[in-house]
This record gives sequence, C-alpha cells and structure tokens, in this order.
Amino acid sequence: MMRMVDLIEKKKQGEALATEEIQWMIAGYTKGEIPDYQMSAMCMAIYFQGMTMEETITLTMAMRDSGDVLDLSGIHGIKVDKHSTGGVGDKTTMALGPIVASLGIPVAKMSGRGLGHTGGTIDKLECFPGFTTAIPEHMFKQNVNDIGIAVAGQTANLAPADKKLYALRDTTACVNQKSLIASSIMSKKLASGSDAIVLDVKVGNGAFMESAEDAKALAQIMVDIGKGAGKQTHALITNMEQPLGYAVGNSVEVLEAIETLQGKGPADFLEVVFALGKHMILLAGKANTEAEAIAMMEESIQSGAALRKLREFVAAQGGDPRFVDDPSRLPLAKEVVDVLAPQDGYVSKLEARPIGHASMLLGGGRATKESEIDLSVGCVLHKKIGDAVKCGDSLCTIYARDKASAAAATKEVLGAYEFSNAPVAKPKMIFAELS
Amino acid sequence: MMRMVDLIEKKKQGEALATEEIQWMIAGYTKGEIPDYQMSAMCMAIYFQGMTMEETITLTMAMRDSGDVLDLSGIHGIKVDKHSTGGVGDKTTMALGPIVASLGIPVAKMSGRGLGHTGGTIDKLECFPGFTTAIPEHMFKQNVNDIGIAVAGQTANLAPADKKLYALRDTTACVNQKSLIASSIMSKKLASGSDAIVLDVKVGNGAFMESAEDAKALAQIMVDIGKGAGKQTHALITNMEQPLGYAVGNSVEVLEAIETLQGKGPADFLEVVFALGKHMILLAGKANTEAEAIAMMEESIQSGAALRKLREFVAAQGGDPRFVDDPSRLPLAKEVVDVLAPQDGYVSKLEARPIGHASMLLGGGRATKESEIDLSVGCVLHKKIGDAVKCGDSLCTIYARDKASAAAATKEVLGAYEFSNAPVAKPKMIFAELS
Repeated sequence: MMRMVDLIEKKKQGEALATEEIQWMIAGYTKGEIPDYQMSAMCMAIYFQGMTMEETITLTMAMRDSGDVLDLSGIHGIKVDKHSTGGVGDKTTMALGPIVASLGIPVAKMSGRGLGHTGGTIDKLECFPGFTTAIPEHMFKQNVNDIGIAVAGQTANLAPADKKLYALRDTTACVNQKSLIASSIMSKKLASGSDAIVLDVKVGNGAFMESAEDAKALAQIMVDIGKGAGKQTHALITNMEQPLGYAVGNSVEVLEAIETLQGKGPADFLEVVFALGKHMILLAGKANTEAEAIAMMEESIQSGAALRKLREFVAAQGGDPRFVDDPSRLPLAKEVVDVLAPQDGYVSKLEARPIGHASMLLGGGRATKESEIDLSVGCVLHKKIGDAVKCGDSLCTIYARDKASAAAATKEVLGAYEFSNAPVAKPKMIFAELS
Repeated sequence: MMRMVDLIEKKKQGEALATEEIQWMIAGYTKGEIPDYQMSAMCMAIYFQGMTMEETITLTMAMRDSGDVLDLSGIHGIKVDKHSTGGVGDKTTMALGPIVASLGIPVAKMSGRGLGHTGGTIDKLECFPGFTTAIPEHMFKQNVNDIGIAVAGQTANLAPADKKLYALRDTTACVNQKSLIASSIMSKKLASGSDAIVLDVKVGNGAFMESAEDAKALAQIMVDIGKGAGKQTHALITNMEQPLGYAVGNSVEVLEAIETLQGKGPADFLEVVFALGKHMILLAGKANTEAEAIAMMEESIQSGAALRKLREFVAAQGGDPRFVDDPSRLPLAKEVVDVLAPQDGYVSKLEARPIGHASMLLGGGRATKESEIDLSVGCVLHKKIGDAVKCGDSLCTIYARDKASAAAATKEVLGAYEFSNAPVAKPKMIFAELS
C-alpha cells in the first residue's frame, strides 16, 4: 500500500517518484484523501530536490486528467493556443486573437480572470458592455466554426488538482519552482484541447522569471511537456523589464489593443504580437515562411480585417460593437493626473513591477479572488526606455477614482523611472525561441 | 503584520528567523491560527536549510512556554532529570531512578508511553499490578519529598506545541532534523521543571542517530539549549549497535532491572547506568569526584538500598511490592522458544533494530498510539557481541503469545546475528561526553 509519508521521504532524499506514485498522489489529493499538510511538505521537498523531466510530464498529465479534458475535435482546422506567463501591460490576446482569427486560424480560448496588477483577458473583454464569457460549450464551439474566434471562462472542473495545488503553493512559499510552474500552466493548456501551443515566457522585473536563464529553463520544461503530450509546442522568451506597450489597466489596455488593430500600435507591443503570431500561423499550417506569416498579419491590420474580426467577436458574445468602432466610449476614470519628468535626459530604466503596483493601487487589479476590479482606472505611459525627455514633460497619465489613489500611484510611477544624460538604446524584445 | 508565508519564504531562502517570528509562529500554531499545511512546509524548509543555535533555543523556549511549565520548587534538593533518545532494551530509568533516589537525589520524573519496539517507562512500571502514574501533582511532589522518587505521566498540557508539531513531522517525513529533534526533546524536559539534565544520546543501528558524528551533533545542540535555558546539562553518547543488556520487552526488562538492583546486572547495562548516574550525582552536588559517585552507587546496590527504594516507590504509587521481592511473579508469555546458534564461533554482530522488531512482532510495542501492549512477551538474549557460541547453543529465549508470532520473531532474531571464527572484542559502551 502506498503511503504519502514514504513518497515525501523519497523526494526529500532526492529520488525520482515513479509514474504510479505521482498518479496515486494527484488522484488522492484531488479527492481530498491526501491532506494539504502532506502535499505542502511534498512541494517544499520538490522545491529543494527538483523533479526529472519524466516526473514533470507525469505530474502534468495527472493534473490534466484530474478533471474535464475538452474535446475540440468538432472545430475545423488546427487549433493553436497561446499562453503568456504574464506581465505588466500584456494585452497580447486582445490584439493577436482577432489577427490570427482573421487569417482563418481557429481561436478557441479558455481564459481566466487571474490575480495581479490588472484584470485578466476576461476582465478586459468585459470593458465592452454586455460581453460575456459564460457561454455554453456548444456555443463556444459554434462561434469558433462560424466566425473563427471565441473566448470562454475556464470551467470549474478544468485541472482541479492544479487549482487546489496552486492555492496551496501560494500560501506555503512554493510558487517559484520551475517544474511546478510548468506543470501548472501546461496541465490547463493540455486540458483545453488545442492541437498546438505557443508560449510567451516573460523575463524581467515585472515577470515571474527575473533572469533570461531562468526563463529559458522554464520554457524548455514547458516545451518538453507539450511534446511529451504529443502537441507541437513553441516558446518565446520576451522582454518584461518595462511594461509592454504604453497602457496598463483595463479600459486603457483595450483601447491600445484597438489602436493596434487600427495600425497605430506601439512598436514593442507589435513586435511581440508578430513574433507570437508568426509561430501560430506556421503551426497552423497557414504559411510556409516567417516572412510570409508576418506579411499576412500586416495585411490583416492594414485591410481592417483584424479590427472587423474583433467587432464580430465582441458582438457574437453579447458585447456592444459600437465600443470597437468608437473606443472613446470605453470608461475612463475622472481624476486625470500627469506625472511629470523631474529632469532632462533619456529614460534609462522603467521598472514594470512598480507600474503594475500603481495600477493595483488605483483599483485596477485583484489582491484576492474576491476583490472587485475598477475597469476605468489605469496608467498610460508616454515615455519608455530610450526616449528623450525634458524636465516637466508628462511621463505618464494616471486615470484614478480619487486624488488619494492618484497620489499613491504617482509616487510608484516616479519611482519606476531612472534617467541618464547619455542616449540609451531601446531594449531588445525577443531574447530567444525554443521548440 | 506577520504572515506565515513570508516566514516560510525566509527560511526557504536560508535566512534565520527572528526571535519574535518564531514566538509568533509557535503561539499561532498552538492556537490553531496557523494551519498544518503551512507548518509542514516550514518544517521541510528547516530540514533543508537548518536552524541556527539561536533559532533552535528560541523554538525550544516557545514550545516549552506553549503549555504548563512545572514548578518543582516545593521539592527539596537539586532535581536532576535524565533523558534517553531511546533504543532497544533500554530499561535505564527502572534501575537508575531507585539508585540515585537511594542516595538522596530527588527523582521527579515525567514519563511517556511512547511508540516503539517496547513500551515506555510507564508501560514497564505497569508490570507491577496496581501501579499508576496518573497521580495528582501534589501527591507527585509529596512522594518525592517523602521517599525521594515519583514518576508521573506527562500532563496533556506539557509543551502542546511540540505534541502537535511532532505528530505533523511524523506524517510529513520531517522527523530526522537535529534542531527539530533537539527542540522537541528539550522543550518537554525544560517544561518538566528540573534543575539539571543528563542526556543519553544513543548511537547505532537501533537508535535515532546511526553515526557517532550525528549523535554528537545532536547532543551538542541539546546541551547548548539546556545551557541557553540556564540549566546545567550533560550529555553522553552511548552505544546502541546491539540491544542494551539481555532483555527486550516489558516484563523481561523489569526483571532485568530488578536483577541489576540485586547486583546481578549485565555488564554493558551497568556501565551505562553508572556513567549516567555519576553525572546525576555530580550535578546534584552529592559527590565531588566521579570515583566517589561510582562507589556510592555500588554501595547502594550492595547494601540493598536501591532495591528497597524500588519497593518503596512501587508501593507508593499503588503497585504490588511482592513483585519486587519475587520477580518470578511478573507475567511471562506461555509460548517459550529458544533460538539456536546455527554454527560455532564468536558473535560478531547483533543488530538492535531487528531485535526491537521481533519484540514488536510479538506484541510488546506500539505501532500506533491506539495499540494495546502485551507486557508478557519479549526476548531474552543469551549471547552478545564477543561471546563464544557452539552450534546449537541458545542465542535467545522468546516469550510469545502463540507459535506464529514466535516463528516470526525467531526469523528476526536469527537475522540479527552474525558470527566469525576469530575472537571479537566486546564493544565500547560510552563513546563521548559533552557538556
């Protein structure tokens, strides 16, 4: 008879757990037969001793199989899912979804609300009045077949073992272990039923991984898990030393995504969107070369096809499409404050984390699952790394509910900036690709 | 505001916890405000990162103060407590208590039932019909003042934090960490209110610590804790590569303890009893030199004073003193089997662990807290390391409830022995002393 205490001891000694041991452990934990206090000791032992690739794949599969596994076979074409490990100002899905959908790649995405600096993709989509992600499975699939794109909230029973384990890791300081991070992300991705996966692993001050080596190691584990599960998987390591694009918040990020589809997107954001998009297009078999894939995306934006696809998508899930046509309708908080440059020079640093924290202080993110989000607050940066500034220029416009939160956010934003007298190069956006 | 997750993270990173952090943690855990799943993650982090001496002392004090701390000031004289980390055949307290009590050193001992190969001291004392350790505190103190010795069961509220933490460590593979072992033992010793402490740290196959280095390191931590708490503390590292004495069980160990007080004790057992006893006598200020202390103990046995003290002690706590006068009255199981030497030669090895396991298989120990103990079963060895044997000699007599358990125990006992053709030296009993 297997005993959890023996498995903890084995891992503590640095041994690899056998396939049937991991399966037994995850099944027992999901059913509540293995208590949290044993699982948290196991996670801490894993933090110190690590897991082999084989263990990590087995763990991922066991968590995937702990609940429903979506069957998307009724959707035509090769379904390519995209996942980002999260950062500040990351509105990629809002722009990339419509672009690739307009090119005939089925986008069937499960998304979350998430905790953090701003809301998740679902919160941002709810900036369109009436929009809902609480749609039944048959409608989700029907919409993808009809218009090429649908986004649904994660069902409660998607990888429940991961949900339970993540909450436990969060309260026991066991979040930052690569095998556990990778298996958590990939168990949900694999349960979501896509045919191929493109991963965006962010690195820098505003991301989970603060060094490129860590990010690469995490990406490689996720790619190996994806392959181990028989799914083509491609990962990009992208820059999160400063926020992506200019907007950080909910309405302000939706606005920036729409501007991007109107051909007015920030260069750094567009670079990441295109880098991810080209791999989605290649994995979906819709282009033969990277250049071809990029040309297709540029054409989709220039022709207005991508913007029309967003409009169609918003309308199909109950949202008001007039907000796509005229994004100035999106709610913006009334207290508007500009943060002014304290000196002449060049922006040499713009830390993502305090900008995210400013959004949080304004009420744009969730501290706990129960928190209410204010969609109308946020920051719009005007100067990023490498930009020249004059003393008194606006570095950032803050949209706040009141003067107090605006003042708190101002302090965070000012603290995020550093300046130099000598010119500074724009940072590189894509550090590496793995597959 | 302190958060347990931050303390876990700190320890995980290898930092030392501050005094107020440890105090907050133990107070919160005792009250149930900090859940088991966070404490088990903390224990596993401690396993990998260790604790400083300062942290270990603080933890011990916090656990001591989590419940009642006995006030023995009403008992006259210097109270010296003795603690053994436990081994196979360890009936030291049964013999040593009466010896030092007969020399005027107050023995006010809290004891446990314990899990393991045989029962604890309380179980063994219950071999005397009517004997009880469930005596009220005033009677406990009165008996020590009147006759010099009393043994009580641990109150439920003695170091409750340790009780809770030990149970958790037991199910999460976090038992074998020296700071945690040391603080667990010492928190109870310090709460028991004695003035000085003599520790017997056993090393070898039948003990917690399997190497002399580990045993010394553990002993040093306990000595430093004792001193940190202002108590004179002395530790001996003693041999547990084979069982101590000849008897392993409950009645059979009581019989051996009585024989020891009759002047017929096994040499190895007597050596350990005297080594511990001389330090108790010195710490109590009853002798000036080790030689003097040993002479006092020898005299106590030869004069019959120690045996009379045992009789008095048994009677004072409700036990039948006729069992001391005539120990053949002690219950012995009916199925008696001799294990025979399979060859001529010298005993070169007699592993303690399988002999302990044999006692367990016979029903003499507790596998879980709820297990019933059979006081009448056990093993009496006849040959130990260094003894010459002829093929067919009895190595050991087994007292069993039935043929099946006798057969299982026989296999264990035979597996514990190894023989050589060349003579083998008797093992050294005392490896080191620390203070």
